Amino acid sequence: MREITAADMKDMARGAAVLGTGGGGDPYVGRLLAQQALDRHGPVRLVDVDEVPDDALVVPTAFMGAPTVMLEKLPAGDEMTRALRALEKLLGRTVTHTVSIEAGGLNSMIPFVAAAELGLPLIDADGMGRAFPELQMLLPTLGGIPATPMAVADERGNDLILRTVDNGWAERLARSATVEMGCSAAVSLYALTGAQVKEFMVRGTMTLCERLGTAIREASRNHTDPVAAATDVLAGRRIFTGKLVDVRRGTAGGFVRGDAVLEGLAEDAGHTLEFAFQNENLVARRDGEILASVPDLICVLDSDTGEPVTTEALRYGLRVSVVAAPCDPRWRTPEGLALAGPGVFGYDHPYVPV
Amino acid sequence: MREITAADMKDMARGAAVLGTGGGGDPYVGRLLAQQALDRHGPVRLVDVDEVPDDALVVPTAFMGAPTVMLEKLPAGDEMTRALRALEKLLGRTVTHTVSIEAGGLNSMIPFVAAAELGLPLIDADGMGRAFPELQMLLPTLGGIPATPMAVADERGNDLILRTVDNGWAERLARSATVEMGCSAAVSLYALTGAQVKEFMVRGTMTLCERLGTAIREASRNHTDPVAAATDVLAGRRIFTGKLVDVRRGTAGGFVRGDAVLEGLAEDAGHTLEFAFQNENLVARRDGEILASVPDLICVLDSDTGEPVTTEALRYGLRVSVVAAPCDPRWRTPEGLALAGPGVFGYDHPYVPV
Repeated sequence: MREITAADMKDMARGAAVLGTGGGGDPYVGRLLAQQALDRHGPVRLVDVDEVPDDALVVPTAFMGAPTVMLEKLPAGDEMTRALRALEKLLGRTVTHTVSIEAGGLNSMIPFVAAAELGLPLIDADGMGRAFPELQMLLPTLGGIPATPMAVADERGNDLILRTVDNGWAERLARSATVEMGCSAAVSLYALTGAQVKEFMVRGTMTLCERLGTAIREASRNHTDPVAAATDVLAGRRIFTGKLVDVRRGTAGGFVRGDAVLEGLAEDAGHTLEFAFQNENLVARRDGEILASVPDLICVLDSDTGEPVTTEALRYGLRVSVVAAPCDPRWRTPEGLALAGPGVFGYDHPYVPV
Repeated sequence: MREITAADMKDMARGAAVLGTGGGGDPYVGRLLAQQALDRHGPVRLVDVDEVPDDALVVPTAFMGAPTVMLEKLPAGDEMTRALRALEKLLGRTVTHTVSIEAGGLNSMIPFVAAAELGLPLIDADGMGRAFPELQMLLPTLGGIPATPMAVADERGNDLILRTVDNGWAERLARSATVEMGCSAAVSLYALTGAQVKEFMVRGTMTLCERLGTAIREASRNHTDPVAAATDVLAGRRIFTGKLVDVRRGTAGGFVRGDAVLEGLAEDAGHTLEFAFQNENLVARRDGEILASVPDLICVLDSDTGEPVTTEALRYGLRVSVVAAPCDPRWRTPEGLALAGPGVFGYDHPYVPV
C-alpha cells in the first residue's frame, strides 16, 4: 500500500493516456479532476492486488461516452459517487475497493476521484491493460464475469440500473443511454470479488502508468528521447515517425470514429502511415501493410515531448511517433481475439502480434 | 367490483382501440394476449376507483414502442411480470392493484395480462382518457407525480430501472432503451397511491371501452350505423367520411410518424381531409382548415363495420369515417395544453376545442 497525492497525478495521467492508445479520455481533464478530489479529500491508498482480501467487494468506476464530448462536458457533480452507491445498494453489501476498468487519461483518473470521495482504497490494476471502445471488451468478460448489475448516472441527476442477459447487451443499452445523456455518463459495473480481481484483472497498471509518465517527463527534461523512453517501458517498438497530414473524425452512435494519415519524416521519409480509430487506435498500416492492430497497443506520441496524443487531439501538422506494444497475453488467445481482435472491428485481416 | 372473463375482451379491446386514436397498439393482438392470460389464470377483478383504498400501491403496466413493430414482435414472455416485480422490489412494498396507463388496443389489454398473471385487481381507469405517444403525457404528470422509478423489460431477459429528474427525461431514456431493445418493451412506471389514482387518473375508462366496443358490435349486427353508435358513446362528432387515397408512414426514433389523405364521399364528396400522426392521430384538416387536434380525440373508424383503424392498419382504398371527440377537461387547461397540446407536437396553430 502507498498513498497517492495530487502531486503524483500528472505522471500517472500521462502514462495512462499512453496506454489509452488514443482513447480512454483526455489526460489533462482526468488529472485536474483527480487533483481536485485529492486536494479536497486527502490522499488515496493504492493497494497491490495481493493485498486485496479474496472476499472483498470491488466495484470499478468509469466514464462512458465519446471522448470528444467529455472534453467539453466535464464530469461536474456527484455522478461517480451516485453510480457506485446505486450499485452498492443493489448488491446489498458495502463496497470495499474500487479499481480502474481501463487505462486511459480520464478513465484511470476517475477511480481516484471515486476513491477519494468515498474513502475507498484503489487497487493497482485495470480490466484491459489498455483502453477499448466497448464495455464488454474486458478481461473479466473472458472469465465469465457479468458486467451487470450496472449503474449509469448523469450530471443532471438521472440514474439507470441495467441487468442484461450478457455483456454485449450491457454495452448496447448503456451506450444508447449515454448517447441520450449527451454522450457521457458515469458508470459502475463489473462488481468483482477480490479473488476475481486476482484472476481476471491486469496487475500493476497504475504503477505502470506512473512509470511511463515519469520516464517521458524525465527524458524530456534531460533532453534525451522521450519516445524511446516510453517505448522501453512499454517493451514496444517505434513503427513510424512523421507529420499528421490528414484526419477524418466523426461522432456517431456514441463513439468517435475516423482515421489519420502521417507523412514520414527522417528514416520514414517517402513513406506514409495510416491509422484508424474507434475511440481507440485500431490498426496501423505503413504503405498499405499492416504493422500493428488490436488487441495490441498503438500509441501516438508527440515526437518532441513524448506526450500522448489522444484521438480528439489529432490535428494537421503534429509531428508524432507511433509506438506499437504487445497487449496482455490473454487478449492473444482465441477467446481474447474473438472479443477484441481485428474481426470484431470489421477488419478481415488476421491478427499479427507485435 | 365485477369479474372480467376472456369473453369480455373483444368488445373491450375494440373500444380501447377507438380511444387509442390510432395508437395504443393493435386491438387484435391485445385481445389475444388478454384472452390467453384470462383463460390460463381465470377472471380478473375490475374494481371501481372508489373501491380502491387511499393507501393502495397501484403500479401501471404497459408496452412502450412503435405500434408497427409490436404487431410483429409480440410480447412473448414474462416481461410484464418482470417489469412490475422489479418496481415492487425497488419500492419495498407489495403492489395491490394495477391500472392502464392509456386507452389503446394493446395498452388497455396489457394490464389484464399483468392482473391475471399476478392475481391483482385492475382499476377501472386510465392515465389519459386516450392514448398519447410520449410517456410524460399523462394526467398524473400534471399532478406532479413522477414517472420514475420505472422498470423496462424486454423479451430476452434484459431489465432496466430508471430514476430521472423529470418525466420528460424518463421518456427520453426509456425511449432510447426501447429502440435498442427492438422498438418494444414492457414498462412499469408511475407508481401511485389509491388517493392519487382518485385525484389524477381518468375514471371509468375500461367500462367506457366496453360500452364503445359493444355499441359498435351491436350496431353492426343490427345493420344500423356503427360509426353513429360510437360517436354517441364518445359524445363526439363525425367530421369526415371518405376513402384513404394516400398514406405516408415511417418508423423513426422509436415512433411511427406520418400522414394520410382522405378523399370525401357522400356529403363530403369534392373535399379532402388530411390527418397527421405520431403513433396517435394529432391533427385533422378539412380542405386545409383544422377541424380537430390534440389533445382532443381523432378516431378513424371503418365506415362499414365501425372497427377502429390504427395508424399501422391505414392503407389505400379503406373507406373510413373520422370522429372527433372531446378530451378529458384537464387536458384543456393551460398546463394540460403545455404538456400535450398542438405546440408540443410542433404545430403553431392554437387549440380549438371540438
